Amino acid sequence: MKIIKGGVTAPKGFLAGSVSCGIKKSGKTDLALLYSTALCMAAGTFTTNRVKSGSVVLSMERLKKGISQAVIVNSGNANCCVGKKEIKDAEEITGLAAKKLAIKNESVLMASTGIIGRPLPIDKIKKGIGSLIKNLSRSNGTNFAKAIMTTDTVYKEIAVKINIKGKIVKIAGAVKGAGMICPDMATMLAFFTTDAAIEKKALKQVFEEAVYDSFNRITVDGDMSTNDSAIMFANAAAGNSVIKKNTKPYAVFLNAVKFAAKELSRKIVLDGEGATRFIEIIVKGAKTENAAELSARRIADSNLVKTMIAGGDPNWGRIAAAVGSSGADANPWRMDIYFGRVPVMKNGTGTNASRELLLNIFKKKEIEIVVDLKSGSKSSRVWTCDLTEEYVKINAEYET
Amino acid sequence: MKIIKGGVTAPKGFLAGSVSCGIKKSGKTDLALLYSTALCMAAGTFTTNRVKSGSVVLSMERLKKGISQAVIVNSGNANCCVGKKEIKDAEEITGLAAKKLAIKNESVLMASTGIIGRPLPIDKIKKGIGSLIKNLSRSNGTNFAKAIMTTDTVYKEIAVKINIKGKIVKIAGAVKGAGMICPDMATMLAFFTTDAAIEKKALKQVFEEAVYDSFNRITVDGDMSTNDSAIMFANAAAGNSVIKKNTKPYAVFLNAVKFAAKELSRKIVLDGEGATRFIEIIVKGAKTENAAELSARRIADSNLVKTMIAGGDPNWGRIAAAVGSSGADANPWRMDIYFGRVPVMKNGTGTNASRELLLNIFKKKEIEIVVDLKSGSKSSRVWTCDLTEEYVKINAEYET
Repeated sequence: MKIIKGGVTAPKGFLAGSVSCGIKKSGKTDLALLYSTALCMAAGTFTTNRVKSGSVVLSMERLKKGISQAVIVNSGNANCCVGKKEIKDAEEITGLAAKKLAIKNESVLMASTGIIGRPLPIDKIKKGIGSLIKNLSRSNGTNFAKAIMTTDTVYKEIAVKINIKGKIVKIAGAVKGAGMICPDMATMLAFFTTDAAIEKKALKQVFEEAVYDSFNRITVDGDMSTNDSAIMFANAAAGNSVIKKNTKPYAVFLNAVKFAAKELSRKIVLDGEGATRFIEIIVKGAKTENAAELSARRIADSNLVKTMIAGGDPNWGRIAAAVGSSGADANPWRMDIYFGRVPVMKNGTGTNASRELLLNIFKKKEIEIVVDLKSGSKSSRVWTCDLTEEYVKINAEYET
Repeated sequence: MKIIKGGVTAPKGFLAGSVSCGIKKSGKTDLALLYSTALCMAAGTFTTNRVKSGSVVLSMERLKKGISQAVIVNSGNANCCVGKKEIKDAEEITGLAAKKLAIKNESVLMASTGIIGRPLPIDKIKKGIGSLIKNLSRSNGTNFAKAIMTTDTVYKEIAVKINIKGKIVKIAGAVKGAGMICPDMATMLAFFTTDAAIEKKALKQVFEEAVYDSFNRITVDGDMSTNDSAIMFANAAAGNSVIKKNTKPYAVFLNAVKFAAKELSRKIVLDGEGATRFIEIIVKGAKTENAAELSARRIADSNLVKTMIAGGDPNWGRIAAAVGSSGADANPWRMDIYFGRVPVMKNGTGTNASRELLLNIFKKKEIEIVVDLKSGSKSSRVWTCDLTEEYVKINAEYET
């Protein structure tokens, strides 16, 4: 596998476009389209929030058959909590895009991100669709990644290539993330493309595994969006022999998708609202997977732990307290805690690790926290970022 | 019932004292003693964190019999995560206090608050105990409330009097709170005194009900301390006929303790780290108590909701998203949301409430958020505060 330049249009047969249609006050691009010249196998995972954007409702329904060809994305408005109108709007927008692309309505998906509770400016969007389609091009992959941003400070894309029985197959992705990133589901907007030929079922399994291992392992603020959507398109343009489950090519492909998804997850955490540090939390030695998971998530979502790291202050007692209150089956008199490789607590007791050493660890951009419960063999890993004054500032001033 | 001046020494027969023994670098008082001249019926509730301070372990054990006479409190050090030494230290400190007070070891409880993971400066504390006991006086109630503070900006105490069959009975309390306030348990240090004569079982029930209805209804940051302790002493000095369960005097007494506990809970939330606003969250119309509770707590612990209120920004979609992701059984197309009495969402749809009106509501010091799930008759109430840049600042710089 090799990392290559570009984003969602790096694989063959994909075009992207973006325009500014007037949803964002800033005048930045806010309407984007990703389109495959051929019909694709497609898979998606969506928010588990009971309150779902009309765009999510439409895409979930249309992805049931596992076939799709395009997705239209608007940023700046979530198309959520505005009543049944939000579904009608999503139908109208995708319908118009389908008509202009001369493909079936059912082949167009939709994703939205932005403020909740305001009707989409449907006329502006409809006006924008014409020039959006004219803008479609192989060279607009990065512009697509830029147009889906909201509070993100950098665009996030990746592309890789692999060799499947002598054929070059490309895989790429673009995501937007930042705040409201929660671990329970797809966690943000993510769009993956590949020119691989792959069986529908195999694609579904690859994508679900990759999402579980990446976007579902990160958390910025523990909140869960109404709009989280992760979608993958495979258009078979690479001309490889069709990838089937439980084969060597399948393993190679899975590995590459996982890599791309993990890289994009890292980028989301690093671009978490106000974040200054990347934190990897590993809980091991747990009796059950659930205990490992509960502990790791509790640490990752603890404001006290996250502010501690923002402050560069090795106050590890907050980690012990988080594990103890997680509901996980953990014996405090057995628990060890490490910052990187430095033990700070052994068997529930502080080790008197050198404060200077710890302060140095906390100065780094990436910090690893390891908790060993020493009561079993299960483990869990979660990625998060610190909680800074800047996070509060961004979120207090979001609407105005 | 009437509110009266003073704190924990307002009821007859209680003395308090405080000294600075050198735990806090600031030189502020950090060792406090609350003592009843007569043996008391006593009740307590403690953190449910699996990681518990040695002081908590000792007090829980000693309160099993429901009898006690004094509590020694240190602030600035949690006496937690330092190994078995923390229990030995608690035994030694309470033992020395008991000896000097000429009462049984078992009659002295201990509570600690402050940083986790550092051994108590046991010699400093032992030195301090002598002058602490000399300092005991009826007039030191407020000084006791001051000595238990850590990041609190104001001391918190209350005293009330009631009439039980012609006898004046007093009830008082002092608490410390601020950060690390979580709803699952006693949530901070709280000390209640009363000169009522009351049956042991009746006291236990009164206190548990009052804690459930007050300290267990508040949340500042969703984190849970290793040291939360709430303790109540009743010394019978008022000379009333003994209060028994399911009698009218019991109801009058319960009502007064609940009032005092609620008032102190409010004070804790209002003094939440960096807090500028008091938020009451009411979820009603839920199918089950659990659904009401899950939704209310999820809203209260959502950083996005809390920063929204800090910013004075009526972005109610974040509330809908919090309910939707709480795991509670809620139909988004039925849900109503109100700020105060103003509906902002009806049946899952924004109401277009006047932004000016909402901004005015958000300018107030106290904000009420009501969510009506319209699918049953159960409800839940939680109190919290906003999340400000100041919170992050306080917690990032706590240790240093």
